[in-house]
Parts: sequence; structure tokens; C-alpha cells
Amino acid sequence: MAGKVAIGLIGAGRIGRLHAEHLMYRVPGAMLLAISDIAPGAAERCASDFGIPAVEKDYRALLDNPSIQAVVVCSTTDTHAGIIAEAARRGKHVFCEKPIALDLKVIDSALEAVRKAGVKLQIGFNRRFDANYRRVWELIREGRIGDLHTLRITSRDPAPPPIDYVKASGGLFLDMMIHDFDMARFLTGSEVEEVFTLGAVRVDPEIGKAGDLDTAVVSLRFENGVIGSIENSRRAVFGYDQRVEVFGSKGMAQTANNGANNARVSGPDEVSEDLPLNFFMDRYVDSYVREMREFVRCVAEGSEPPVTGYDGKMPVRIGKAARLSYDQHRPVRVSEIVSEA
Amino acid sequence: MAGKVAIGLIGAGRIGRLHAEHLMYRVPGAMLLAISDIAPGAAERCASDFGIPAVEKDYRALLDNPSIQAVVVCSTTDTHAGIIAEAARRGKHVFCEKPIALDLKVIDSALEAVRKAGVKLQIGFNRRFDANYRRVWELIREGRIGDLHTLRITSRDPAPPPIDYVKASGGLFLDMMIHDFDMARFLTGSEVEEVFTLGAVRVDPEIGKAGDLDTAVVSLRFENGVIGSIENSRRAVFGYDQRVEVFGSKGMAQTANNGANNARVSGPDEVSEDLPLNFFMDRYVDSYVREMREFVRCVAEGSEPPVTGYDGKMPVRIGKAARLSYDQHRPVRVSEIVSEA
Amino acid sequence: MAGKVAIGLIGAGRIGRLHAEHLMYRVPGAMLLAISDIAPGAAERCASDFGIPAVEKDYRALLDNPSIQAVVVCSTTDTHAGIIAEAARRGKHVFCEKPIALDLKVIDSALEAVRKAGVKLQIGFNRRFDANYRRVWELIREGRIGDLHTLRITSRDPAPPPIDYVKASGGLFLDMMIHDFDMARFLTGSEVEEVFTLGAVRVDPEIGKAGDLDTAVVSLRFENGVIGSIENSRRAVFGYDQRVEVFGSKGMAQTANNGANNARVSGPDEVSEDLPLNFFMDRYVDSYVREMREFVRCVAEGSEPPVTGYDGKMPVRIGKAARLSYDQHRPVRVSEIVSEA
Amino acid sequence: MAGKVAIGLIGAGRIGRLHAEHLMYRVPGAMLLAISDIAPGAAERCASDFGIPAVEKDYRALLDNPSIQAVVVCSTTDTHAGIIAEAARRGKHVFCEKPIALDLKVIDSALEAVRKAGVKLQIGFNRRFDANYRRVWELIREGRIGDLHTLRITSRDPAPPPIDYVKASGGLFLDMMIHDFDMARFLTGSEVEEVFTLGAVRVDPEIGKAGDLDTAVVSLRFENGVIGSIENSRRAVFGYDQRVEVFGSKGMAQTANNGANNARVSGPDEVSEDLPLNFFMDRYVDSYVREMREFVRCVAEGSEPPVTGYDGKMPVRIGKAARLSYDQHRPVRVSEIVSEA
Repeated sequence: MAGKVAIGLIGAGRIGRLHAEHLMYRVPGAMLLAISDIAPGAAERCASDFGIPAVEKDYRALLDNPSIQAVVVCSTTDTHAGIIAEAARRGKHVFCEKPIALDLKVIDSALEAVRKAGVKLQIGFNRRFDANYRRVWELIREGRIGDLHTLRITSRDPAPPPIDYVKASGGLFLDMMIHDFDMARFLTGSEVEEVFTLGAVRVDPEIGKAGDLDTAVVSLRFENGVIGSIENSRRAVFGYDQRVEVFGSKGMAQTANNGANNARVSGPDEVSEDLPLNFFMDRYVDSYVREMREFVRCVAEGSEPPVTGYDGKMPVRIGKAARLSYDQHRPVRVSEIVSEA
Repeated sequence: MAGKVAIGLIGAGRIGRLHAEHLMYRVPGAMLLAISDIAPGAAERCASDFGIPAVEKDYRALLDNPSIQAVVVCSTTDTHAGIIAEAARRGKHVFCEKPIALDLKVIDSALEAVRKAGVKLQIGFNRRFDANYRRVWELIREGRIGDLHTLRITSRDPAPPPIDYVKASGGLFLDMMIHDFDMARFLTGSEVEEVFTLGAVRVDPEIGKAGDLDTAVVSLRFENGVIGSIENSRRAVFGYDQRVEVFGSKGMAQTANNGANNARVSGPDEVSEDLPLNFFMDRYVDSYVREMREFVRCVAEGSEPPVTGYDGKMPVRIGKAARLSYDQHRPVRVSEIVSEA
Repeated sequence: MAGKVAIGLIGAGRIGRLHAEHLMYRVPGAMLLAISDIAPGAAERCASDFGIPAVEKDYRALLDNPSIQAVVVCSTTDTHAGIIAEAARRGKHVFCEKPIALDLKVIDSALEAVRKAGVKLQIGFNRRFDANYRRVWELIREGRIGDLHTLRITSRDPAPPPIDYVKASGGLFLDMMIHDFDMARFLTGSEVEEVFTLGAVRVDPEIGKAGDLDTAVVSLRFENGVIGSIENSRRAVFGYDQRVEVFGSKGMAQTANNGANNARVSGPDEVSEDLPLNFFMDRYVDSYVREMREFVRCVAEGSEPPVTGYDGKMPVRIGKAARLSYDQHRPVRVSEIVSEA
Repeated sequence: MAGKVAIGLIGAGRIGRLHAEHLMYRVPGAMLLAISDIAPGAAERCASDFGIPAVEKDYRALLDNPSIQAVVVCSTTDTHAGIIAEAARRGKHVFCEKPIALDLKVIDSALEAVRKAGVKLQIGFNRRFDANYRRVWELIREGRIGDLHTLRITSRDPAPPPIDYVKASGGLFLDMMIHDFDMARFLTGSEVEEVFTLGAVRVDPEIGKAGDLDTAVVSLRFENGVIGSIENSRRAVFGYDQRVEVFGSKGMAQTANNGANNARVSGPDEVSEDLPLNFFMDRYVDSYVREMREFVRCVAEGSEPPVTGYDGKMPVRIGKAARLSYDQHRPVRVSEIVSEA
């Protein structure tokens, strides 16, 4: 087991269990030593299901463990920034689920702790590691698209989350479209300069009563001159709708949804196929494995993680700009969203 | 030949010749009696090529001909409104290519003449008659999409027109995106309330020097609450890129580009298909036939044409709003573009 | 009209009317002078519908007309060979619908008359002119497939013809699969050496009672070493199913069915598209135009037609071999089907 | 760990390592206790890589281990039947890779041992568990295809195996097409009654010198009246080509190849996608997991495995019939291939 990166996992909820399984079985360079969760029994169940050696109630026990080199943070969003900072001060490398925090000052404070400690921090924007998006990214880098002119991201969930989740989530732009802002930065290789938001409540009036939107089209202008749009909906009845299209001087690249099978039926009334995958864990499972392999590799090699703390912060700024654009019904420059960095 | 609608064709340029061929060969209810063109020889060549009985230098000769019930106007844009009004006053029904005019007062004046004369007027927004778009329109009407939430139109030309054409065209929004504004109104069954424009010069700096854009993403909000976007580029290296996507409470409909064949080759390096059709006359030829059949049917039956003078005017207003949004960098309500109607 | 090929059309049934419309409107090099049909009124209706100048009861009147350079034969199959021979002797070039005859001696006799007269004869294997198949043919010629290894043709009709038609048709192999035998020769550029037939009655027992099959898989070995198979069914509930796949040392080419539109609907239960075109005249209309343009061009230029009398005869031989293989339950060499040529 | 099925793995080659990883990480109901391999170091490496507790040189040590309930046989083909029989006599359930043996008497003898011992035996026809084929199987069972009329299987490898492997493999029909014979039986739910083989050496003359074929089209007639064909090639330059098409009274179902991503590029010359997956372990990895889960479930529940010893034997008989058909150039009934069962 020598040479493996020793890891502690904080949080045994849905996403924590996913990473637990991957760290145990599908990330050869990792050794998951212990898991913690404040919810009674959650860490124990996860440890038992996947054979994790140790269980702790308090994540601080993982930080106290000198064998542990890195922590994977899957606790609730409000705890992310604090744990990042604390872990950094204890010299632990950190993989943290998105978002770092909903408040930019809090994010900056966590990033500053990371900077001072000189530890690695990777943010869980897993879609960058999805084979479809990764291929588009490569095509752009290979010059197959030429100079990029426009970008378009479609991102629709199969169903809205519970209304209580909506209320605490930071809203459509910080909870859902944040992934798309990251994808936009990833693919264009440029920062978003300005956004304009068209928003609506079309899926569920309760979401509107909670002060949020469930449908939005955000126009974006990038620093490198690319223009584009992102469309979100909280409910696509046909499943998880996740696509991108980039267009440039030499061509266009597009991705399609992924299905569980590709059987095609020609019947008396129509030609049909099964729906796209309906659950993000099915759709993106390989990307979660790949992001974790990358994190473990970066820790082992001492190299810079592919999704940095800065990458974790910028989509929050863009999301705030998008909301401000909606509230004030005008184009908003991201630079209006003040942040120390 | 009894019962056929007797038609005069004004203009023997590219689009005039297309309609000439269709009126002679593919619109059984029509009888094309004569053609006029101010360019020496053009009408003669067209008449000879397609067997049109009579040729006139001046379109007024067609209006003077008591046998002619309707005229098809394919002359230059600046003559459209005047000919419409004159033809209406002479009791001729009119099919006119888009746009009616670039000036709203001029349009209103032409439409008023039509109203007073009680003749039929159909505007040449041919894409409404294309099989792909027509099917999406039907799917919406059949309720297959449910309540419409969002709309997205992609419209890219294979190559920009000559720079002299660009200068006289009214610009990207009135020359090219005008088709998409019409499509947006057609599919949503609603008026555009407000637009916001992101524009760029990415294809050819000469277009920018001429004061125009060659790349644009326009966000739209419709009166019925639908939101959406239209993307235009003056050059898609892979051909004529014309697609639409509508999304609603019950599903989504999408169209793809049309190709000359569907052969698919799996070779040592990739799986490939031939490019989409590259020329609008190839891509949309059937829609031109269908729109003309509809016009002739409406004249014969005395019914209202499917694309009215109002339908011809509104996209001009929206186009002006889109340009104003770009110029003033703010969302613009279509109602800001003053018009009498 | 100088320089146009003057044509007489024999037969005003379904396929005759199709060619009439094309010859009048879509084949610029042709001038259709007269039409004949033995059925009272049929030629008159066709002439009236498409503006054909003259009508004759007896096709011999067309052969007597010295202005007519070529005849298009769309009468019933049993009359084809006789008319070809008679027309040839009168010095008329001939386009004849498939098959020339069901009897090889009769075919040979007609081809001999053509040879002696030195006139042009083109057989109506229209699918060679379809854009999909033509593209596959080009890909093979361009070397994109490399050495051809295997060929597969799928050919299914939307519904079986009336049982009376079945009885007189020559059976599945001479009426339906004959097109596929021609396609096989066209694509491989080689002669069929041997066939083995698996046949069944799966669609309609009446077809079996009539001594015919409605479902068949025929294996083929070509003289150039290619092997392959053809599958036919008299009824595909989803429409006209017409596809080909060629495979070789450098790759594979495949065609798909053609639809009336390409709209794709993602609904709550499935992703679906409209059925393929259901009627051969819709599916293959362009190929009928192209074959006639080619015939007229060959007559005008004095060049060899692209589908010769020999091309008309060989599929009949292969069809007879396929039936013999079924009857005797053994592989049959095409050379066993004796013919003079 | 109570309730888990204790397993011993025989053979640590390529496929053995695949099953080892799955049994350790992806088959929750299994507990892999030990591995054996006669090659020095192979079992040790596998045990170390995947954390298998014990290593044995001789598989008999696994059979001697009273804790082990079932063995997974991944040794060379010539050892399969002997190990099956021996394991059965020791009361162990058996999962065995295909084929059981190349000799039918040897197969019968192994199956008899299994029958007498009353243990479970599952054969590794993994493709039955692939999502695409499984969906087609379901569609047939759900009645979506109606009465099945025809079946077509395409199965092409990316590259031929080494010539030494070819010589020992039993030939194209027993080494490669055996999977397709199994698929044919699985999908039709019927036995193959008769085959006719067209074979060729098109890929590599060395394969021909070794007495084998590299290209074949086999026609099949099934007991339930279905007819069909299977096409094999040892080399498809574009990757692993694995597709099926079933056609019946109510419709058709087809599968396509699987790719690593679905990005689609429209460039100046063509529209292209990446090649299909090139390696069977990539293409079919999920099916290997699913077949093993099923085996473990059947052992745990005492139910009949989904791919029986009989299912393992019949494709060998069909393969021998296919070869005999090629050798004698005539249709061969599977019943001609004598076997005791």
C-alpha cells in the first residue's frame, strides 16, 4: 500500500457514499482510511458497505490523524469553507464539493488559508471530467473549432429538488447553473465579462414563492470576445438534459445526452429510443471517478489540481451577477460583484 | 385552365426565377401569365426558360392587365412597399418577398392600402412551410410539448453576402435574423415583448466597418411568458445551419440540418457524414413551393393568407429593437419601436 | 425547343403519370410530344393534367411519328419486350420500366432487336440514381471502403400488393428483390456467381397459397469474391425500409431510411421521430427524375445509357436462380439459369 | 460478510483479472477468497492488485477448500470441461468462460457431471447482459416486435488475433461466431435448425493458410420459423462492430455501436464522430459485471443460472454445422452434428 494517498472522507450522504465507493474500489492510488459524519449511523453504514477501516463522529478526528494526507469534503455547503480552512491549517490537502460557499468573503477567507498553507485544493466540478465535455474541450484545444465564436450550454434537471432544499440552496444560479458557469469557463478558456438574465417560474409556483426561478436563459459575453447563452430548467420530463454546443471559425462541436442503451425501435406509429439517463449519478458516474483519480494523482505528484479554488470561486461571482441582472433587469458585469481576489 | 389563379411575376432575379419555375410546374392552381423585370433581358430569359407566355419591361403593365388576379413581387426590397400599395389599389392580390420595407411608416402605408382595397397579401416567410419547422409547429399545437417554456433558434449562413449587399441590407437583424423573428412568432404563437442583444464581429472585419454585426445572440421574452434565444452567424464553414429547439412542460422537440444524402462512413479515423446542404434554395426548395401553393389557394378560395402583412411588419419591429438593444446595451421592449398599428 | 429530345410515352398508369410530369416539368432536355394508353381516358387525363400536346390510343401511332426520337415504356410487363423490339426496329430509342420480361428467351430476343437497330435502351432501375445509394457507390469508387468484403441490402415494402398482382408479378424475386439484385451488381461492380435462399411466408398466408414467399434472406457470392445477403419483406409496419451496408478493408458505408421531416421529440416516455416515408414514389421521386435526365442526355449525346439491357436481364437471371435455390434447397449458380447471351 | 457467496477464481489471465476486479469491487454478493494460476506469479500479481486474500498454484486447492462454494473458471479452453466436472463432483457451483470445449462428447461428459452433482453451472456468454442486447430481448418479450420474422447479427472484431491463437481457437465459428450463435438463440428464443455458410479469406491470407476463414455470412433457419443471418469479420478498421437487428410483424429493433463519447464535429469537409470502442473489455465491461452478479445471485438463491450448460453446448453444435456447411457447400441441419443430449 506504500505510495498510496491516505484519505479521510467527511460526510456520508449521497455524494459522500459515491466518493467512498470510488475511493475504495476505483481509485487505485487512494487509500481511504476513515470516514466521519455527524448524522448518527451514516458513517457506520457507509464504512460497513464499502469496507472503510475507521469511523469518526467528528471530522476533526480526521484532521488530527497524522496518517491522513488529504480530506474529501462532502458535508453540507455551509460547512465547506470552514473545513477547507481548518484542514489547510492542519496541512491536509482538500477535495471539496461545490460550492465552496455562497458568500464571496467566506470563499476568499478559505482560499487564503489554502494559499498560506500551500496545500492542494480541488473543487468538485465533475463535469469537466465527463467524456463528452472533455472531448469538446480537446477539440477546441486541437484547433478543430478554430477561433471560438459562440458557446451554448443546455442544462435541465429531471425534476426540481424539494422546496426546502431550494430555499437553502442559494437559488438556481448558485445551485444549478454554477456547473454551467464552470463549464463555460472551462471550454472557452476565458473569463465571463458580463451576463444578462431572462428568468421565469414555469415549472412550479412554489419555487417562485420561495424567491427563486426554475427556468432561465443567461446571455454571456466572455473576455476573449466569445458570446453565448446558458439555459436551465428545473424539470425536463424526459430526463437529465445536458448538452453543449461550441461554434467557431473552423466548425462546430456538439454533445448529446447519454442513454442506458441505444436500441432503436421502429413501430407502427413512430421510431423511438429510450429516454436519456434520469439521475446525475448514473449520467456522470465516470466523471466522479476521473476527478478523484486526478485529485489523488495531484496530491501524490505535488502538482496543481485541474479545478482550483479560483475555479470554485468564479462561478459563484458569475451566479451572483446573473441574479443581479435578473433583479435589476439589465446586463451586469461580473466585476460589479466585488471580491478581494 | 378554368379556375386557375392568373398571376403576374415582378422580378426575374434569383428568387423570381425560383417562383417562376414553381408557378409554371409545381403549383397546379396557378397560371403564370406574364413576367416583368427592369433589367434588360432578364424577364425574357426567364420566360424562355420556363415557357411564360408574356414579358413586360414595366411591372405596371402587369397591373394594367385585367386578366391578372395576383402578383408575386420579387423585385428589390426598396420597391416592395410601393408595388404592394399600387397593386392593391388596382385590386390585385399580392405575394411579396420579405421584408416589406426597412421603414415602419412605409410598411404601415402599404398595409393600409391593402386593408382599404380588401386584397390578399402574403409575405414570403417560406420557412414556416418547411417540413421540419412545420412538424414542430404541429407538435406544439397537438400538445406534445405541453406549456412552452423556452425556444431556441440557430440560424447560420454558409458564407456572408458581398459587402455591398451587407451595406444595403438593413443589417444582420433585418436581413437575416428577420426570418428567425418570424419563426419565433410562428412557433410560440405569441408576440415578442422584449429583446436583449449580444453582438460581435467575428467572421469578417469588413462587416464591422460597414457598421454591421456578423455574429449575434438575441435573448427574447414573449408575451405569453416563454423565454428564448436566437443565434446568428454569417458563416458556418460546414454549411447552412438551421435548427430549432422548443422545450415545455411535456417535452422537447428539435430539428436537425438537412443533407443531400444520409450515407454514413466508418473509416480508420472517424465516423463521418457529408455536410448539410449549403445553399438556401436547395435546403428550402420545398417550402417555396408550399408557400406559393398556399397563396394561390387563399386567392382562389378567398381565405386569409397564412403569413399576413402584420406578420411581415412585426419582425421588422423586433429587428429594430434588437439593433437598438445592441446600440444602447440594454434590454429593449418592442413597444419602444413606434409604429402606427 | 431545338435540341430537345422528342419523346413519346407509352402507358398512363401510376408510373407513366410520374414520368409524364417529370418529362414535362423537370427534364429540361426533353420534349414530351404524345402519350398513349389502351385504357379509355387514361392518356387523355394524363395529357390534360400535364399539358401533353397529343394523345394516341395505340402506341404504334407513337412509333409511326417521325418526330419522336425515343419512347418511354410504362405499359404492363408482358408488353415490354415486344414494344422494345418494335420500337427498336422503327429506330426509336427506348427507356423501359423493369423488368424487360419474366422469360429470358423473350428478353434475349428484345435485346437482340435493340443491338441490331443500334438504338439506346435504358432500363428503369431508378434506385441507382437515389442520392443515398449513389453516394455509397461513389465512396466505393473513391476507395473509401477499400477492397469490398461484404454487402448487405435491406429492402422491405410497407405493405404487400394485392394478391392478384402477386400472382402475375413473377414472385418476390422477380418483382421485388430484382431491384436489390440490380443494386448488388451496381455497388459491387461484379456479377453474382451463386445464391442461396432462405424463404418464408410470414406476412400473409394468401401469398403462400399463391405459390410465392413474402420474406426471404438470400446469400450471394460475387465473382470478385465479395459475399453478402439481401433481405426482403413484403410488409414493414413502420414504412418503406430501404438500406444498404457495404464493408471492406478500409471501412464501412451505410445508408438510412428517408423521412418527411427530421423533428425529434423527447417526451415523458421515449424519444421519438416520425416514421420513414411510406410510399415508393415519395421515397424515390428524385431518382426517377435523375434517371430520366440521364436517359435524355444519353439520347441527345449518343452515349451509352447508365443502365443497359444487359443490366435489365441479369437481375432476372439472379431472381430465377434465387427461386430455384429455394425450390431445391441448395446453393444455385447463376450460370445454371440458361440464357443465350 | 455473512450471506456472501465464497468464490475461488481459476486463471489469472486477461479475463481472469477482469473477473477478479469485479468480484472484489463490483459484485456485492460475492466474496473472492482465493485465486490460482499455473503461470508463475500471475495469481500473486492479481491477488496483490485487487486484494485477494489467498493464492494457490493448483486449482485443486480451491476445490479442496470447504469454504469455497463456487469457482469461476478462466483457465485455457482445453481445461474447461475437466475443471467443470471435477468441481461439480466436489460440490462446487461453476461459472465457466466459453466455450466449454470444442468437442461435443467432452462437453456432454462435463454437463453430465454437473447434472449428477446438482450444482449450478453458468457459461460466460456475457453479451446477453449487455444493455443494448438486453433491451432488444425485452422489446421482443414485451411484444413490441410482434411475431419475429428475421434476425440479423453483425459482429466484427477490430483486428484478428495472433495466427497461433487462430490455429488453436477452433476457428472462426467456434471462437468468434459462437457468441453470435448464442445471441441468436437468446433473442429468438428458439433453436437453430439449419445453417448455410458463405465464407472467405479477405483479411489475412495467413488465416486461410491456417485452414480458417476471416469473413463469413451464415444464413440461419430457426425452429420457430424465423430466418436470418450472421456476418463476421476478423477486422473492422473502425473498431469493434457489434450490432443486431430484429424484424417482425409489429416493428423492428436495432442496436448501434458504443463510443467513448458522443461529441459530433461539423467541420469544413464533413460531419464526424469518434470511432466506436475498439476493445471488447471496454465495450462489454458492464455486461461482465452483470453476468457475475447474476451468477452469484443464482448460487445464493439456489435458482437456475440464466446461461446454462445446454446454452454453452448448442452454439458449439451450430458452429460445427456452420463449418460443415462451408466444407460441403450445402445447407446443414444442426441435427446432423451428433451429440448425446
